[in-house]
Amino acid sequence: MTSLPKGFNVHVANMGVKDETNDVMLLTCDVQAKVSAVFTQSLFAGPSIVLSREHAQSGTSRAVVVVSKNANVATGAIGVANANELAALVGASVQCEPTEVLVGSTGVIGVQYPMDRIREHFVNLVGPFDSVSAEDAANAIMTTDTHPKIASTQVGEASIVGIAKGVGMIEPNMATMIAVIMTDAELSTAELDLIFKKVVGTTFNALSIDTDTSTSDMALVLSSGHAGRVNLNAFEDGLKNVCLELTRQLASDAEGAETLIVVTVDQAESSVQAKKIAKSIVNSPLVKTAVHGCDPNWGRVAMAIGKCEDETGIDQNAVVIKFGEHEVYPNQATNELLKELERYLNQDEILIHVSLQLGTEQFTAYGCDLTDGYVRINADYTT
Amino acid sequence: MTSLPKGFNVHVANMGVKDETNDVMLLTCDVQAKVSAVFTQSLFAGPSIVLSREHAQSGTSRAVVVVSKNANVATGAIGVANANELAALVGASVQCEPTEVLVGSTGVIGVQYPMDRIREHFVNLVGPFDSVSAEDAANAIMTTDTHPKIASTQVGEASIVGIAKGVGMIEPNMATMIAVIMTDAELSTAELDLIFKKVVGTTFNALSIDTDTSTSDMALVLSSGHAGRVNLNAFEDGLKNVCLELTRQLASDAEGAETLIVVTVDQAESSVQAKKIAKSIVNSPLVKTAVHGCDPNWGRVAMAIGKCEDETGIDQNAVVIKFGEHEVYPNQATNELLKELERYLNQDEILIHVSLQLGTEQFTAYGCDLTDGYVRINADYTT
Repeated sequence: MTSLPKGFNVHVANMGVKDETNDVMLLTCDVQAKVSAVFTQSLFAGPSIVLSREHAQSGTSRAVVVVSKNANVATGAIGVANANELAALVGASVQCEPTEVLVGSTGVIGVQYPMDRIREHFVNLVGPFDSVSAEDAANAIMTTDTHPKIASTQVGEASIVGIAKGVGMIEPNMATMIAVIMTDAELSTAELDLIFKKVVGTTFNALSIDTDTSTSDMALVLSSGHAGRVNLNAFEDGLKNVCLELTRQLASDAEGAETLIVVTVDQAESSVQAKKIAKSIVNSPLVKTAVHGCDPNWGRVAMAIGKCEDETGIDQNAVVIKFGEHEVYPNQATNELLKELERYLNQDEILIHVSLQLGTEQFTAYGCDLTDGYVRINADYTT
Repeated sequence: MTSLPKGFNVHVANMGVKDETNDVMLLTCDVQAKVSAVFTQSLFAGPSIVLSREHAQSGTSRAVVVVSKNANVATGAIGVANANELAALVGASVQCEPTEVLVGSTGVIGVQYPMDRIREHFVNLVGPFDSVSAEDAANAIMTTDTHPKIASTQVGEASIVGIAKGVGMIEPNMATMIAVIMTDAELSTAELDLIFKKVVGTTFNALSIDTDTSTSDMALVLSSGHAGRVNLNAFEDGLKNVCLELTRQLASDAEGAETLIVVTVDQAESSVQAKKIAKSIVNSPLVKTAVHGCDPNWGRVAMAIGKCEDETGIDQNAVVIKFGEHEVYPNQATNELLKELERYLNQDEILIHVSLQLGTEQFTAYGCDLTDGYVRINADYTT
């Protein structure tokens, strides 16, 4: 069991949103926690996102509540009122202002919260309560995740503990990525924000399950400061490790996924160029199905590079493609190597490595194979 | 059987590229045909594309040769030499300049042509030969297509006959879209080009199977002029009908597809905006799997609109979503309607209709559902 950083407390419960599993996680901090947050850019962002984006602007928060099994998205004016009431209920329960509460929500789209049950739960909730572990917290925010996602590390005297959920990029198979990271390291909001946004760019934003973007994605980091100042470079490394580990866990547990696909593009002109190519490869249905079939089909990787039509500086004769350590283009694989690569692709994690021979920048993207399991999960769900 | 427009002749044969099915289609015109052509924008475009792009610039051609079962892509300098030799062999056989020959190729990537067999075939090929029908021509360019694609229409005294192939956007399941349209209507190259590029924008370019772009896509129209001048508006309508019918046949026969998905976005600010939203919907794996599962899951359509993050003018409260004629958002469907929609989605062709309430422009995109058949076809192929 993973303990929380000093100053944090998590309560979990079943409010009866959908079934009898835990469907609410309430994280509180005993001081005004410094906070940095990133949210979905979706035009159909739900009221939870709109509210939390506004509340996070102050740079501090006292509580984060995450409701699972209902996204409260596309629910109109009533949905907006319900999100506000939820923040007020939490504020009353933990004795802070509603504006000090951040709200996350994940689950079915287009259905109103069961507000009677939510009201009943919070009216009767009087702290302080004993905290549950990070594992129980991660469990309470799961929807169709098959296991909880937790990562933690130590930076000097401080600890960083993160939890996350998400199995696709979207509901109603109740996907949505939500990550909440707690630390007792002491940082200003500006420091936390600078570091978190940098880290998110190469971790959560390097993850693609199915190119679909949730209406409810959010990632937060909160700092209580109780462990004092730490070396900021060490903190950035620690935070990156936690976020990267959560990213890898999310990719591995994606809907129907059997293989974690890591795509590194290097020798690029810019990291933006490297990211564009890496994401094109990791998102290609034909690359994803080839990996699923353990087929070392490098022609599909070439195709996925080729379809980035705006990157006219890329020369197909200069590009080098490798599976793991093995070059497959332009020095084409022998039949013996292809056999070996079939075994290589039949692993839990595989690497596709592309060198552009244009510069010194690089980017690594994370994704997963496309399986009949993904189709089954997403086709068989009925509203 | 569909006859070819006046002036065209098609020869088909098996050269032994891969198996014993026909793998070459040679179309000739008895005069310098006016030609307009569009090609893949892929950075990994094969030598056939590079050669044909150059040869088409003159605005006239005498012959089109399409080799199936081998794409001649990512084949280096030898591949380039082979494409040039193929054009020369065809030129010698039909007595025209190599620069008057266009070359198309579709099939496995990264494998050289069997040049000995190709040489033997063309050296022994002495015309004139009796022409085969459009059906036989369409058959000869198939790879994993389950049936030939042909469409034709009459414009005054002239006829327009098109053939196409393609089942995904890429090889090595030997997809690639190739379309060749013949007409005996008399047009200048400039007229033909203007009309063809306009028509392609709302037909072949409105088609998305799996977001993957082939290294070998090409669409051509050739005019012999033997039927004389026609009304240009009527010609444009006729050409559009032929290209749209081929587009629909391509979407319906896509790998594993069971349902043709038509997405119309209207009341948009611009056709560019409408196209972006329509393509986002028709390409969304979660929308595609929902249709496959006959699940009237409008939340996924909302998500697919929402992920077009740059279109900040779109207001989620103004958007109207319909399946067929039935509104599902913002006036949400009753359970009775949802049952009816399950039946609606269980058809060969379904319509998703989105109105943005922003303007008067519209776009219609064509795609297909995502099935376990797609995964199976693309995962089970082994290099």
